[in-house]
Amino acid sequence: MLYPEEFDVIVVGGGHAGTEAALAAARMGCRTLLLTHNIETLGQMSCNPSIGGIGKGHLVKEVDALGGAMALATDEAGIQFRILNSSKGPAVRATRAQADRVLYKAAIRRRLENQPGLMLFQQAVDDLMVEGDRVVGAVTQVGIRFRARTVVLTAGTFLDGRIHVGLDSYAAGRAGDPPAVSLSARLKELRLPQGRLKTGTPPRIDGRSIDFSRCEEQPGDLDPVPVFSFMGQAAMHPRQVPCWITHTNERTHEIIRSGFDRSPMFTGKIEGVGPRYCPSVEDKINRFAGKDSHQIFLEPEGLSTHEFYPNGISTSLPFDIQLALVRSMAGLENAHILRPGYAIEYDYFDPRSLRSSFETQQIKGLFFAGQINGTTGYEEAAAQGLFAGINAALQCRGESPWLPARHEAYLGVLVDDLITKGVTEPYRMFTSRAEFRLQLREDNADMRLTEAGRRMGLIDDARWDAFNRKRDAVSRETERLKSTWVNPRNLPSEDAVRVLGQAIEREYKLADLLRRPGVGYEALMTLASGRHRTELVSRETLGELYAPVVEQVEIGVKYAGYIDRQNDEVERAAFYEGRRLPESLDYMQVSALSIEVRQKLAKHRPETLGQASRISGVTPAAISLLLVHLKKSRAAGFAAASDPVTTP
Amino acid sequence: MLYPEEFDVIVVGGGHAGTEAALAAARMGCRTLLLTHNIETLGQMSCNPSIGGIGKGHLVKEVDALGGAMALATDEAGIQFRILNSSKGPAVRATRAQADRVLYKAAIRRRLENQPGLMLFQQAVDDLMVEGDRVVGAVTQVGIRFRARTVVLTAGTFLDGRIHVGLDSYAAGRAGDPPAVSLSARLKELRLPQGRLKTGTPPRIDGRSIDFSRCEEQPGDLDPVPVFSFMGQAAMHPRQVPCWITHTNERTHEIIRSGFDRSPMFTGKIEGVGPRYCPSVEDKINRFAGKDSHQIFLEPEGLSTHEFYPNGISTSLPFDIQLALVRSMAGLENAHILRPGYAIEYDYFDPRSLRSSFETQQIKGLFFAGQINGTTGYEEAAAQGLFAGINAALQCRGESPWLPARHEAYLGVLVDDLITKGVTEPYRMFTSRAEFRLQLREDNADMRLTEAGRRMGLIDDARWDAFNRKRDAVSRETERLKSTWVNPRNLPSEDAVRVLGQAIEREYKLADLLRRPGVGYEALMTLASGRHRTELVSRETLGELYAPVVEQVEIGVKYAGYIDRQNDEVERAAFYEGRRLPESLDYMQVSALSIEVRQKLAKHRPETLGQASRISGVTPAAISLLLVHLKKSRAAGFAAASDPVTTP
Repeated sequence: MLYPEEFDVIVVGGGHAGTEAALAAARMGCRTLLLTHNIETLGQMSCNPSIGGIGKGHLVKEVDALGGAMALATDEAGIQFRILNSSKGPAVRATRAQADRVLYKAAIRRRLENQPGLMLFQQAVDDLMVEGDRVVGAVTQVGIRFRARTVVLTAGTFLDGRIHVGLDSYAAGRAGDPPAVSLSARLKELRLPQGRLKTGTPPRIDGRSIDFSRCEEQPGDLDPVPVFSFMGQAAMHPRQVPCWITHTNERTHEIIRSGFDRSPMFTGKIEGVGPRYCPSVEDKINRFAGKDSHQIFLEPEGLSTHEFYPNGISTSLPFDIQLALVRSMAGLENAHILRPGYAIEYDYFDPRSLRSSFETQQIKGLFFAGQINGTTGYEEAAAQGLFAGINAALQCRGESPWLPARHEAYLGVLVDDLITKGVTEPYRMFTSRAEFRLQLREDNADMRLTEAGRRMGLIDDARWDAFNRKRDAVSRETERLKSTWVNPRNLPSEDAVRVLGQAIEREYKLADLLRRPGVGYEALMTLASGRHRTELVSRETLGELYAPVVEQVEIGVKYAGYIDRQNDEVERAAFYEGRRLPESLDYMQVSALSIEVRQKLAKHRPETLGQASRISGVTPAAISLLLVHLKKSRAAGFAAASDPVTTP
Repeated sequence: MLYPEEFDVIVVGGGHAGTEAALAAARMGCRTLLLTHNIETLGQMSCNPSIGGIGKGHLVKEVDALGGAMALATDEAGIQFRILNSSKGPAVRATRAQADRVLYKAAIRRRLENQPGLMLFQQAVDDLMVEGDRVVGAVTQVGIRFRARTVVLTAGTFLDGRIHVGLDSYAAGRAGDPPAVSLSARLKELRLPQGRLKTGTPPRIDGRSIDFSRCEEQPGDLDPVPVFSFMGQAAMHPRQVPCWITHTNERTHEIIRSGFDRSPMFTGKIEGVGPRYCPSVEDKINRFAGKDSHQIFLEPEGLSTHEFYPNGISTSLPFDIQLALVRSMAGLENAHILRPGYAIEYDYFDPRSLRSSFETQQIKGLFFAGQINGTTGYEEAAAQGLFAGINAALQCRGESPWLPARHEAYLGVLVDDLITKGVTEPYRMFTSRAEFRLQLREDNADMRLTEAGRRMGLIDDARWDAFNRKRDAVSRETERLKSTWVNPRNLPSEDAVRVLGQAIEREYKLADLLRRPGVGYEALMTLASGRHRTELVSRETLGELYAPVVEQVEIGVKYAGYIDRQNDEVERAAFYEGRRLPESLDYMQVSALSIEVRQKLAKHRPETLGQASRISGVTPAAISLLLVHLKKSRAAGFAAASDPVTTP
């Protein structure tokens, strides 16, 4: 049957990508339908019970800055929060939280159920409706046809999913869930370029069988407890609990090696490539044979369960090996495994066939997001889901896609990396992937993105008001620091010694003093001449915003030099980034280029010269030749990109 | 691999039967393993979000009296409680609760995770290990072999499950869950007699799309809010909410009839028989063509969701018909369906091949419980699970099975009905199935069963202490009422008129006065001569037990005559019930019986003369002839059954 109502956006899948996609499209005013095989698993954390980390935390803050759900849900569900790299530069500082699975799922489900404009429907999707070169809807397992103007596919590991434990395997989308076999077959008929990847998960352990006295306690940051969302507060957090650390040892490694002959990875049973930076324990032992111990984090899965997630021993070795390797570690001598570890192989699609908006090149209106684009990680999935949801919504409105640049957001880096370089293994985010990472900090995610989000309709009034208060306070306070002078007369030398370590010998701006190593904003404000700020920046007037404002002022002043320098680099790069390549350009006719480069450009059809420059095998020399060709031919459509977001 | 530890009891399945089975076996000190395909779905309510009702509430109270989980979990999760038939006799009064699905699941999972002696393991079971005529364990999907002395199989609707919506169908254990296909095939190889049944569930509705102003509100009992468990308290309950009532109408019925030609039931696509007393709406419209309206209850699925369960429109009609029929009802004109209704077909096993203990006749140590025995309903499943878990544990201890008689428990009625009569459609409990139902009340479930439970090790000290306090208070207060005399001298006539409606003309025992219609215990105690009770029965000394004690005293006194009469009947019946039939008896040689009766007895091998008398086609005359035969032949082993529970 054809469902009687038509939708703007259908999102297929209810994981981290699907939920952000559906929420974003609905926030933007689109009639949105989320199709999931099981409403009970909406927002389920299939693997580790944690959110964030270096690079990943940055993505979560960006999703948050655009009004997404992940950060706030984590604030409601997080049972341990830490700022990683807190002693290092602000660019690599990152938030990480352990989440209670049940609370996290509840937080996501509540948002989905209460989002105006969003409808949920439970049934697996077996097919897409395609008319000509355009998707027009999706068909469920019992033949219900839902019509829509755009479809965002976020099928995770479900497409033709197959679980491996040792040499045994069976079809599944995730432990306990059926795979999406029919949809996989139908997508294959559409001839979208695809391949197989694999990922894995460790065995889970009953905390009642762990001897914690033999493990090292790892508490979270407690004073203060960090928050994830710009709108979050520590008071939202449930009870905080510690993690625990144990280690693999020589015996563990021997046990693991003894299972290599029955490993589905090493025997070739698994063809898909796994994530290099989140490897299985057998992979680690194999690749780093010299290392005789690895740290294993025992992470609580929640406040209402004894289950623990042993982070670091993801494995698809046979279960007898899993049991022996777990029990070989200190504290786990009598461990009971509740769920076996496993690897899962699944279909992914080559992201180089996606446009910059994540719309597929082959089928108009069809967007792909999340793990099916060859990524790994909840945060990468959420960011992509949000992005695809936004662009599906913009397409419905008849507007140009929103395409954040590499210097504006990790989201821009993620999308650009995927569509220009593709993947050979599941892609995860690192700060090292960003060439302008001093710009792309967790602390300024809102400053970078919330305005764009507001323009597109993603940001509600409460967040927008808070954002403006923060932005105004930061900017006015920064101006004040830059224009307030202190001199030896109005700064008593005992005060100067206390705060600055020595008396000042001449006149300085407060901003200059703040730039000195070891001088903090709070201390500076204890100087008599710094106290005028109270009306602007105080705990009383700013409340929860006080700390973020101080942080922002401090980082802005202290790192101004580096940031300015990076801004120059961004501007230079913008020359290439902004040059759009004409859609009609026939690369095979550009005789100045080598055949190999012509073929690559013809195949991937980059949208800008910047993208073209990052395609593997396309050299800087080739880019120069292309530029010359385009200028000579005054190719139609070759121009600096205008503001990619059309103002509504 | 062979798992290194061996278990006493393995329970396969984590639904209502499996959880009670596993908890009971573990409470009895057995090393117990619960195998489930998904730990996240432990305790999931697959169909309606409610527990109890007439007959079913009785089973829940019995499970509770034996220390089971269902009643207490309902007390923790119940968002509406009602006493049904509260104005009728105590035998048919029953408790019913709406449960918050999320809270219910959490309550069950917490109990499972915290039960000493019980281990959980997540993986589907694909096979049983059988040696000779004995089960010795179970094999999971990836070949992990768990050895055990007994196995309780509670596979629900998962065995070769197939979901139907209109003429479309697909393999599934339940919406969103994979079926158990391999296990079904392996069980077929074991040649246990089996067949197919079907059950169904209605579409679920988004409460945000319901116009409640067009529905009738149905509040729960609020003063006081009932409790389910003997150990429960109203303070455990979460917030209470109402249900709502709407109705089908002529148009609804027309819409339903218009879908008959695409109904999997009416077109023969579904072969399994469905539950007569919980029929699909198309079945109701078909069978009761004269009725032009049916009541539909809109039941909230929980406090944290907008989802509603429309009780009364279970259906496997095509989805277009589902949508139209829902929207044809008052208040549902704009309803959004969140999940389609469906029917599911699954394997069941003929319970007539089970022994009285639910051990299969064919394979020693293998017990079946729940829906696979041909029943329907959470409560029937839970009661069977508890029963099978107890008997598996007793077998491990080398003790005789526990076999409650039909006059002792609905559990006895349930088991006896199943093993003697089998099923032709999913079996559900009714009070009318019990011939001694005045004995089998909700209010005395603890009095009937808790002592046996304590002997077997099912009852912890807290419950046992509370039970003894209640029992002693009831018995002493009843004695006091029977031995305390009031007469016109010590009972002022204004008091008598107030409480009894008239003055007394001679001496009476308090018990005699309580027996009068309209005279309640509380009122009686306001008489000066009734006040001596304070030390025994008062809110102060009994606390939460006060109301149950008063109820028990009142019912015991008021219904003494009826109960005594029924006790006589029970004794007469006991003559047959207690006569065990020799295991060696060759029925085909009992020439006094007709060939048909000999065949039936030979096939089903009843364990007692009572069971034999309830096998369909075995007449009272045949039972008399059999009795004569046995007496004449002084058959070895033919004797009155001794106490079936061996004292530890």
